[in-house]
Amino acid sequence: MAPVKNGRVVYKEVPSGYPEPGKTLVYDESQTIDLDNVSLHGGILTKTLSLSLDPFLRGKMRDSKIKSYSPAFVLGEPIYNDGVSIVLRSENKSVQAGDHVISNISAQLLICSFSSPWVQRIRATDFQEYSVISSESKWTVVENEHNLSWGAFLGVLGMPGHTAYSGWREFAFPEKGDVVFVSAGAGTVGSLVIQIAKSEGLKVVASAGSDDKVDFIRSLGADVAFNYKKQKTSDVLAKEGPINIYWDNVGGETLDAALAATAGRARIICCGHISDYNADKPSSITNLGLAVSRELRISGFLIASIWPKYEKKFYDELPKAVASGNIKHVVHETKGLEKTGQAFKDMLTGVTSGKNIVVVAEK
Amino acid sequence: MAPVKNGRVVYKEVPSGYPEPGKTLVYDESQTIDLDNVSLHGGILTKTLSLSLDPFLRGKMRDSKIKSYSPAFVLGEPIYNDGVSIVLRSENKSVQAGDHVISNISAQLLICSFSSPWVQRIRATDFQEYSVISSESKWTVVENEHNLSWGAFLGVLGMPGHTAYSGWREFAFPEKGDVVFVSAGAGTVGSLVIQIAKSEGLKVVASAGSDDKVDFIRSLGADVAFNYKKQKTSDVLAKEGPINIYWDNVGGETLDAALAATAGRARIICCGHISDYNADKPSSITNLGLAVSRELRISGFLIASIWPKYEKKFYDELPKAVASGNIKHVVHETKGLEKTGQAFKDMLTGVTSGKNIVVVAEK
Repeated sequence: MAPVKNGRVVYKEVPSGYPEPGKTLVYDESQTIDLDNVSLHGGILTKTLSLSLDPFLRGKMRDSKIKSYSPAFVLGEPIYNDGVSIVLRSENKSVQAGDHVISNISAQLLICSFSSPWVQRIRATDFQEYSVISSESKWTVVENEHNLSWGAFLGVLGMPGHTAYSGWREFAFPEKGDVVFVSAGAGTVGSLVIQIAKSEGLKVVASAGSDDKVDFIRSLGADVAFNYKKQKTSDVLAKEGPINIYWDNVGGETLDAALAATAGRARIICCGHISDYNADKPSSITNLGLAVSRELRISGFLIASIWPKYEKKFYDELPKAVASGNIKHVVHETKGLEKTGQAFKDMLTGVTSGKNIVVVAEK
Repeated sequence: MAPVKNGRVVYKEVPSGYPEPGKTLVYDESQTIDLDNVSLHGGILTKTLSLSLDPFLRGKMRDSKIKSYSPAFVLGEPIYNDGVSIVLRSENKSVQAGDHVISNISAQLLICSFSSPWVQRIRATDFQEYSVISSESKWTVVENEHNLSWGAFLGVLGMPGHTAYSGWREFAFPEKGDVVFVSAGAGTVGSLVIQIAKSEGLKVVASAGSDDKVDFIRSLGADVAFNYKKQKTSDVLAKEGPINIYWDNVGGETLDAALAATAGRARIICCGHISDYNADKPSSITNLGLAVSRELRISGFLIASIWPKYEKKFYDELPKAVASGNIKHVVHETKGLEKTGQAFKDMLTGVTSGKNIVVVAEK
């Protein structure tokens, strides 16, 4: 068979503010691949089916001189994140043509210790149609015994699911009667946190930025759900609090309002600060001084650090619960690799909700 | 003997900004006491020798409607804090005339749980010359086997000493090679934290607000000591950091600079925020968003909560170390109960340093 096009989403320039489709991320069809003859060097040739879009990718679109926990994307090369692919050819005995494989960017980040020099680059699944993957560490074969969607594997059972599950177990210290506040409650992480907190019998207050998302949050069982664009977070928390646990996905004003509404010995779990990701300068917090008199415990974390500790329990519990519908989740699919740039911006601006994935090919 | 005057320091009005001597705190000689005949109701009659001044007392000079961990002082009544007294008469078999007793405001605060209604008032030692103390829970007999000064008992061996010792053990998680930053390093808490950190072999950077205090910090063994009024904290930390542990006594700008200079997984111990105590509005923090990517652990605490856990070890180690000179401490004595108002303001504005006590009587 003659070489075929191998479409890619290339990182073209460092964005200021929101990443612009066609500028920050450019769809490129200039490359081809000979699927029958490309050298595998003992690895596998895969066809990409679904790719995950997550807010943390915005942090990788930065000046590469700025260090952070995850290396910056490389200008001129495809972006990468977790994805599900089907194997077309294999020179590796542990995997066969026709198998499905999934990458695990968090597990790979574990090699990136805080005390050792930062690794230059960590690849999960490239945003391109076909890939040759030489290293066995970059994929796991998906058994899919419950016949779940790829969106489930990339979301509620993927990095965001592990984030919610492990972060809660490591830092929440829930007690009977606690009031929990979750921001970005309609996101993949937030919506799982809400369900976990409800399963423990706690009162859950959660916010989101549209009425549709608020309806979704309510359907998850939250006791109080509100649209922060219509109701002030501080007003809602003054009425429904004080809060004992705050799961922070957004930072900024919301975090400040939550700090003000804390009960003594409250736990603040800092998981993300999406409100700052696209801002020129970080937002101001005025209530951190309350940490002393209220004995607050504020814990920031990256899932890579705590994943292994809870991995077994996670896989024992979650796939079953998702398959049975006991744990709900929503997937937003964008069909077509060429639409990645717009899909990513829509996720950051809150146009779309649930687990965002790009469907590159159905099978 | 005829009744004698019983001078008192009365809390007269809620201050805005720094408490003003003669306005906030007024020395009053209108009361008398008949030392021979006053009823003890099974308690003891004491003559106050030394009283402790601590920054947290500022927080008790607030509108009593505002709740906090420690009840507001009552307008028209004497202020109170820890003090050493000598027993003049006793109707309690466990204590004799001539014994010295010390109060423990922190241990008493333990009865004030976060979930139960706030107690209206907790008394340690009143700022007055003579007191009748009925409850045994309000004092401990001081053995003083090492013949230490009352300033030592109220400072390095008192509430501030327990704060430094217990807070470090509970929250610092020191590791070999760590860099520690301590603000207000010349204060009673800060200077003990510096010495503990040095005893564990860590690199210590510490700040204070005068050259004399900087000299004192250097004499404690700090590797880097600086006057934050002459050198920017952020500049010093950029050069000497990143920091793994920050012991925060001041909050505000200094806390923000420390957050910016943290290494991954740094521990921030929020012990006080003196920079805000006398301000109209709390200061702004812009670097809290780093909590996620650097996996920061920020822990605020009140000594009352963790005191019991470390009490035995503290008394096994510290009195000996202070007596031998292995642990250094400085006491600033103000002689005369009538000078309390000025002494308190001088401590808050940084005019005086070390453990501030008011000497009411020598014996």
